[in-house]
Amino acid sequence: MFVPGLIERKRDGGALTPDEWRGLLSEYAAGRVPDYQLAALLMAGFLKGFTREEAAALLDGMMGEGARLDWAGLGRPVVDKHSTGGVGDKVSLVLAPLVAACGVAVPMMSGRGLGHTGGTLDKLESIPGFRTGLSLVETRAQMERIGCVLIGQTPEIAPVDKKLYALRDVTATVESIPLIAASIMSKKLSEGLHGLVLDVKLGSGAFITDPARSRELAEVMIALGEDRGCPTVALLTAMDRPLGRACGNALEVEESIAALRGEGPEDLLEVTMVEGVEMLLLSGAKDARAARRDLETALSSGRALDKLREIIEAQDGNPAVVDDPAILPQAALVEVFAAPRAGTVLQVEPRAIGRAVVQMGGGRQRVDDVVDPTVGFVISARPGQRVERGEPLASIYARDEAGLRIAEDALGRALRIGEGAAEALPLVAARISAKGYEAL
Amino acid sequence: MFVPGLIERKRDGGALTPDEWRGLLSEYAAGRVPDYQLAALLMAGFLKGFTREEAAALLDGMMGEGARLDWAGLGRPVVDKHSTGGVGDKVSLVLAPLVAACGVAVPMMSGRGLGHTGGTLDKLESIPGFRTGLSLVETRAQMERIGCVLIGQTPEIAPVDKKLYALRDVTATVESIPLIAASIMSKKLSEGLHGLVLDVKLGSGAFITDPARSRELAEVMIALGEDRGCPTVALLTAMDRPLGRACGNALEVEESIAALRGEGPEDLLEVTMVEGVEMLLLSGAKDARAARRDLETALSSGRALDKLREIIEAQDGNPAVVDDPAILPQAALVEVFAAPRAGTVLQVEPRAIGRAVVQMGGGRQRVDDVVDPTVGFVISARPGQRVERGEPLASIYARDEAGLRIAEDALGRALRIGEGAAEALPLVAARISAKGYEAL
Repeated sequence: MFVPGLIERKRDGGALTPDEWRGLLSEYAAGRVPDYQLAALLMAGFLKGFTREEAAALLDGMMGEGARLDWAGLGRPVVDKHSTGGVGDKVSLVLAPLVAACGVAVPMMSGRGLGHTGGTLDKLESIPGFRTGLSLVETRAQMERIGCVLIGQTPEIAPVDKKLYALRDVTATVESIPLIAASIMSKKLSEGLHGLVLDVKLGSGAFITDPARSRELAEVMIALGEDRGCPTVALLTAMDRPLGRACGNALEVEESIAALRGEGPEDLLEVTMVEGVEMLLLSGAKDARAARRDLETALSSGRALDKLREIIEAQDGNPAVVDDPAILPQAALVEVFAAPRAGTVLQVEPRAIGRAVVQMGGGRQRVDDVVDPTVGFVISARPGQRVERGEPLASIYARDEAGLRIAEDALGRALRIGEGAAEALPLVAARISAKGYEAL
Repeated sequence: MFVPGLIERKRDGGALTPDEWRGLLSEYAAGRVPDYQLAALLMAGFLKGFTREEAAALLDGMMGEGARLDWAGLGRPVVDKHSTGGVGDKVSLVLAPLVAACGVAVPMMSGRGLGHTGGTLDKLESIPGFRTGLSLVETRAQMERIGCVLIGQTPEIAPVDKKLYALRDVTATVESIPLIAASIMSKKLSEGLHGLVLDVKLGSGAFITDPARSRELAEVMIALGEDRGCPTVALLTAMDRPLGRACGNALEVEESIAALRGEGPEDLLEVTMVEGVEMLLLSGAKDARAARRDLETALSSGRALDKLREIIEAQDGNPAVVDDPAILPQAALVEVFAAPRAGTVLQVEPRAIGRAVVQMGGGRQRVDDVVDPTVGFVISARPGQRVERGEPLASIYARDEAGLRIAEDALGRALRIGEGAAEALPLVAARISAKGYEAL
């Protein structure tokens, strides 16, 4: 394998064959092709593009010799959800126990905070004792016992993706749609799913802010999933404002517990319901109406909340948190942010909010930063809302004065108040499946 | 310095500041920025381009903390020539002693064979005992004594270029005009020259086959040289056929010695003369006519040949080779290649010839290949020549039967014979200087 020749072809706008990609990534995984050649190749592909066939070969290569979970004998359909990431996006924490309470198994493998977005693992770890690093054996046992795990990517899953992702992160080659799609799907397809729901975010708080590119990402992922025998459905949802009110790890856990009690916030519950319906449909539900009814019953009966309690207990967390959120770590300083003027809330810009959470200590600016679970925001202001000067719009949770200043500054920029109509994306803008695009 | 941010900016079509480039390459040289980040950055620049200002900063960065030769007290002007490389291009071997015989000092630092082209160092090393690896102290002493050295890039010269070139070679990022220009000029400007002549090749045997790009390369190099106080002139010369008749290391040394005796071949002598005139003009010659007369006298008097003898002796080679080329290593097999049909020689395609020399053992296919100095071609057929069927067109010098087959096959493809007019580039097509472009 003459790697410079492959790089040259990609550089000049050509494509590598599936065999070339698989061979190359296998040699890379084995340490026989150096990082610098992959870096040059990925940058060439980033700028010149990858074909759909190449995305499929990249997917295979990223899965490598990794494990592929096998649920034979589990006796339940196995489905999962993946979100492209956003601010205040705690849907996974509500959705996984809710769907599991409906008898569908959910092996949810999540990630950590990235850039301005939060990560499900960081949120879960704000629950005292909660352990996200289960072994494959523990995973299997828990799936059999309670039908749900909330864990991180194990070392056995898509090992080449893991190595490649670390390289992309430091060589500015993350935001390529085929690379993102292959990377996400390499992990999800390793879960051995019967179906997958994708939550592809739209708007300024999403990683991809161009709606046409968001749609393309969804379509590439659906094609990859369907090709590999995993029925895949995508929902395009709003991330031009935070989802729900809480932004920050422990605060989001608290809000998720409230949602499982049926206590809102409304947008979070609605996105969860829409995605839950799709997961149940992929698991054999008769129709959307029946699926929604099942979900509502699981919520109102308390079974969904019980399922979260079971999961927390099974993963060594303190299950009492479900009944007494005050057990969660609490911020040292809490301050109310008041409207600096009267007017209409035109925008609640999520990226500034997400960045502030990171800067306040709630995310990582360096790989080895320790996340402070307590900091963040609870923002009650919604786009379109009429507010008076001095009216409370948000609460700030900080560990020190510096954090308060960062938070105030961010809210001052993120909460645009003026005259006129707020522009907001529909909460769920579209549904895409193998059958095509459907605006909602 | 946040390197992924710099890569991202280049990727998105922006430019790095001179300080950013210098800082980055200095950190790279120190091993504090890894190869993979440079590889991604160079690929982004390869595809998105570098500004002239960036090329200048790259040049500075490539020179790094390297040595810069200082000829104070030498009492002679110091000039050099650089060729972008071709097939049969042995001009350096004739030109350096010729110009040195005219009282101009020539610290000629050359390279090895690359791709389908030969390298001056490999040619010189076919002279028994010849040593191209002089130290800086030896270089200075020999320059004082005989006014010329024929050497390789010492470790002290442009060390960052050396490291970067090795990386570019294996990441398909060689053929970027600003990178080529900066790399060449980083070495040449380290020679502390009073003037530089560039031989930029045109045609299918050149590295850059698009004439507009060849001109651009010349112009970028001239701008870099002039900016740094080194008057620089470029000649665009024909590489749509081999230069001279001999292609192969020892065969080219033999032909160079013949040329220094005034025994042709004519095209080699003419290119040498034209470049020699420019070197003498850069050294203070009154005008082109006077310069040419000096060169002709140095040739006809035997002083140029004597100078080569001196250089060979000073660098531990066997000087008797100048009077008895049979001392050079000789090929095991020699075979005549005859015209397969009657007609006009439409083309003598140099790239196929150059590749065959490499494949016959006369160049490297891998970094650690040992070069066989004996193999190659002496091609008497010229474009436009009328030939009869069976007429000898070339001699093949091979080390074994396999080499003969490679050579025959290559000549069969390279020597196009048919009816009609041959198309050939003018031997010296243009001259470019700081004052502009002048077709010749």
